[in-house]
Amino acid sequence: MSNEQMENIRHSAAHMLAAAVLELYPETKLAIGPTIENGFYYDFLFPNGMVISENDLPKIEEVMKKIISGNHKFVGRKVTAAQAKKEEKDQPFKLELIKEFSGDGQELTMYESGPFTDLCRGGHVNSTKEIPVDGLKLHKVAGAYWRGSEKNPMLTRIYGLLFSTKKELEDYLYQLEEAKKRDHRKLGKELELFAVLDEVGPGLPLFYPKGALLRRTVENFIIEMQEKKGYEPIWIPHITKGKLYELSGHLDKYDAMYPPMELKDEASYYLKPMNCPHFMMLYKTNSHSYRELPLRWTCTTTNYRYEKSGELSGLTRVRSLTQDDCHVFARPDQIENEINLMLDMVGETYRVFNFTNFWVRISTHDPKNKEKYIGDPDVWQQSEVALSRLIVSRGWKHEIGVGEAAFYGPKLDFMVKDVLGREWQLSTIQLDMNLPARFELEYVDSDGAKQRPVVIHRAILGSTERFLGILIEHYGGAFPVWLSPTQVLLAPVSIKHVDGARKIFAELGEQGIRAAIDEADETVGNKVRKAVGQKIPYIVVVGDKEISGEDWMIRVRGEKDQIKMSKEDFVNKLKKEISERVV
Amino acid sequence: MSNEQMENIRHSAAHMLAAAVLELYPETKLAIGPTIENGFYYDFLFPNGMVISENDLPKIEEVMKKIISGNHKFVGRKVTAAQAKKEEKDQPFKLELIKEFSGDGQELTMYESGPFTDLCRGGHVNSTKEIPVDGLKLHKVAGAYWRGSEKNPMLTRIYGLLFSTKKELEDYLYQLEEAKKRDHRKLGKELELFAVLDEVGPGLPLFYPKGALLRRTVENFIIEMQEKKGYEPIWIPHITKGKLYELSGHLDKYDAMYPPMELKDEASYYLKPMNCPHFMMLYKTNSHSYRELPLRWTCTTTNYRYEKSGELSGLTRVRSLTQDDCHVFARPDQIENEINLMLDMVGETYRVFNFTNFWVRISTHDPKNKEKYIGDPDVWQQSEVALSRLIVSRGWKHEIGVGEAAFYGPKLDFMVKDVLGREWQLSTIQLDMNLPARFELEYVDSDGAKQRPVVIHRAILGSTERFLGILIEHYGGAFPVWLSPTQVLLAPVSIKHVDGARKIFAELGEQGIRAAIDEADETVGNKVRKAVGQKIPYIVVVGDKEISGEDWMIRVRGEKDQIKMSKEDFVNKLKKEISERVV
Repeated sequence: MSNEQMENIRHSAAHMLAAAVLELYPETKLAIGPTIENGFYYDFLFPNGMVISENDLPKIEEVMKKIISGNHKFVGRKVTAAQAKKEEKDQPFKLELIKEFSGDGQELTMYESGPFTDLCRGGHVNSTKEIPVDGLKLHKVAGAYWRGSEKNPMLTRIYGLLFSTKKELEDYLYQLEEAKKRDHRKLGKELELFAVLDEVGPGLPLFYPKGALLRRTVENFIIEMQEKKGYEPIWIPHITKGKLYELSGHLDKYDAMYPPMELKDEASYYLKPMNCPHFMMLYKTNSHSYRELPLRWTCTTTNYRYEKSGELSGLTRVRSLTQDDCHVFARPDQIENEINLMLDMVGETYRVFNFTNFWVRISTHDPKNKEKYIGDPDVWQQSEVALSRLIVSRGWKHEIGVGEAAFYGPKLDFMVKDVLGREWQLSTIQLDMNLPARFELEYVDSDGAKQRPVVIHRAILGSTERFLGILIEHYGGAFPVWLSPTQVLLAPVSIKHVDGARKIFAELGEQGIRAAIDEADETVGNKVRKAVGQKIPYIVVVGDKEISGEDWMIRVRGEKDQIKMSKEDFVNKLKKEISERVV
Repeated sequence: MSNEQMENIRHSAAHMLAAAVLELYPETKLAIGPTIENGFYYDFLFPNGMVISENDLPKIEEVMKKIISGNHKFVGRKVTAAQAKKEEKDQPFKLELIKEFSGDGQELTMYESGPFTDLCRGGHVNSTKEIPVDGLKLHKVAGAYWRGSEKNPMLTRIYGLLFSTKKELEDYLYQLEEAKKRDHRKLGKELELFAVLDEVGPGLPLFYPKGALLRRTVENFIIEMQEKKGYEPIWIPHITKGKLYELSGHLDKYDAMYPPMELKDEASYYLKPMNCPHFMMLYKTNSHSYRELPLRWTCTTTNYRYEKSGELSGLTRVRSLTQDDCHVFARPDQIENEINLMLDMVGETYRVFNFTNFWVRISTHDPKNKEKYIGDPDVWQQSEVALSRLIVSRGWKHEIGVGEAAFYGPKLDFMVKDVLGREWQLSTIQLDMNLPARFELEYVDSDGAKQRPVVIHRAILGSTERFLGILIEHYGGAFPVWLSPTQVLLAPVSIKHVDGARKIFAELGEQGIRAAIDEADETVGNKVRKAVGQKIPYIVVVGDKEISGEDWMIRVRGEKDQIKMSKEDFVNKLKKEISERVV
């Protein structure tokens, strides 16, 4: 089915929703009913302050489906404004629209379908029989101001889902349900990962020990991988004088900066929203030979961006962004090799975190607009060719966005699908010929001449916070063993087994295994239930047998049957899963 | 010799310095000549813009010693202001002092000693023969404004060192020389550890890869040690709404905060100067059972304090302080055990970093001023007793500062001497009964009643930056192997040995050894010289023999003779030194 067909079906269904509401509540005033992703909605003003809730939806849906089953044709006719006003005389919102549209000189049309007529631009099915009622479901009620302004009356918005088949609807509902269960804000609380506090501020999450451990594990994975590839961490402070951002040009152009800290005795200080200028300045403090390049500098550090508070959400939209930021200072002839090394790391990261489904957007310059770009045209040409070749040779899905490059260099953006099929932009690799020029960076070439290096920006995770938000939902909180804050829960059968459990706890700890003991004065059944809720990979009930050295019975997350294993085998199994980062 | 005697000797010597200057340059105007640590100075206005430099000091010192050898007695006599003015009629600075002192009602005295008379309060030796001329040295000239104000004339300050013996003087001069060589600002540049940049701001060092590695190695040592003791890292953002500091009380009382970032749409945000309030709030988000305590939370995070720019210096006085901050939330009955655990860690840290000479200041409450303190008197009593007992039982040197405790709890401060005998305050352990009350922290006791926990603040390093500054000087940049950014320098004999060196480099890297190759087109002699200057622990010249697998000749830092060893033995030696953190 084409997108346009589906649009028409959904739009037609919106008419049917209005028809059903009018049949049930004839005094209702109608506003508008557009299509949206996966369905449609219609805004209503119900009579006498009547409140419609989700409990009323099955009834409305039933009437709606009955009307649809009448196989009504959609018939449009042109009307004058006067005629339209007459027909809609009891509908104040429609009258407002008629006035507006006719003032704008738009042609007015009324569409009839069975018992219902609506002021409408058109775009329908021929007959309501084309609406796949099996794929239809009214699923949500919300408040919405008329025309989005809080000065206007509050209307009731009824949302409908509409797919071409029942299967598609069910899949979508399942996905919605899953997404709700996996909501990282909900899991963040349940699993004691992080908290957002009024006293500290929106978009500034604090991490409990378990969340902090998750953060560190993810960040250290990147840091260690980078180290093996010859990347060197540097360290920079979180603030700077404004002077640095005057040099870089960010002070004029960058919107999301926190306001300055203004001092009497000195120039103002700024909280850094990005790291590039600090990196550039540190490079500039020393002279560099062509032999030293590439310098692969990295810093896992927190940036602060003042995003609007309405747009903040859990970990995915925050004001504190800890970036796995790298800046590679390279000679132009080193670009291809450096990008290739970066692609190795991106691929390795996605494999380890089980993001098997991803694609790459390659943003290149617009050949019709060459004057728009700075830097050596040869470098542009060669690096764009190299970028495409490197992506193609790996067999990675990609799209080329011609003309989408920034004025200072071509770019790669990586789009990753999580298990629910939702797409997230994660990694970025960006060539930069602007900052090296602004900061007048140099290296001394083999012939003694001063040359300008290229800078390649790179982040794999994007930001730790956002990546964790995605990761929590991707795994639904059931992290693979190497990422799990608690890897094994020890549940002593009774008080007298606590000492034995502590001994086992210490033994596991020495082997680098993160265990925890539930010492609460509760039944083992309760302890197991809690541990299951905490999505801990392995649960061991510690009784006489376990302490005495007999084989253990081990509950495995998500599996019905327990496994039987000696302590040594279990330890080895865990160590293997941790070191190999088994997904 | 008592402190007072030494004061009198140094003060008397200051008179002799003035006497010598007047003998050489009779038109000189005298200002003041107090004693200082290790000696004295005198401020002079030399006639006709005459410039005195350090080259003139031997001559002045010679005259000074000659006058001293005259065995002149110090004789004081009371004078009226009029008499004093008459005697000092050619000395404008003295006239100013006479006017001031007589206005204040002070008694005026003049002291004569041989050829020289000075307006002076007294405090001298009987005769100049008591001045130990062998321990005397004029050693520095500096500019100083009269009375410290730049509105006044610039004077010449001559500094003298004076000790009771020649040996003491020589020791001190050696120490000065060593301190200069070891100055962490100088070494920080030479060893490419850190840089302070105009564009970023004073007191905000940036760390090059080698310095960042040193930071991380030191911080990770603490983090890993803590982890073994059951400490759990949390993560907190670097900023907060002012609300948090209203709650904690810091907003009114804490001076060194950076000014707020003021927003139109929201309350102001502050850069955090300390972590405690964030920790308190995170504890407060959940209810806690007595079973869960102690909670040992830690965070290695950077705080920002707006110290006056004139007081900033290298890494030891900075505005960005990364603290190894811990807050333990404990039941009162757990205090002793927790402090003991902390002392274990403090002791272990000093051992590893070779700070063998330290003492502890125990700050307790003032029993005469009990109303000044908050919290349970029993907790005060028991914890002060416990603190002393724990320190004594370890045989650690200590002093008890009665009445020096903060109003909210007793405290331990650790004073550490570096190899030059300079004392630094490092670790702090502080009981806090105030913040738990202000934040209304609670735990549920075994009987279901709500109780207030005690908080114990603790930092071992104090701040990473300051600790590194001390460490660089303590080791003079010659870090033990485990801390050395580069552990082995490979110096290929010629271009044709570069590939072989790279292979060795990779092999060492796989064994966790940090090697570097000097691929510059220079002689091996030059490469070795550079590596020695970089204080790299081991240098291996890579020629045919080394590549072929024969025994290596290894240069060891600070030793004249090379050692001969197989590659395998060398690798094992290094791995041992690294893992055992050999000093």
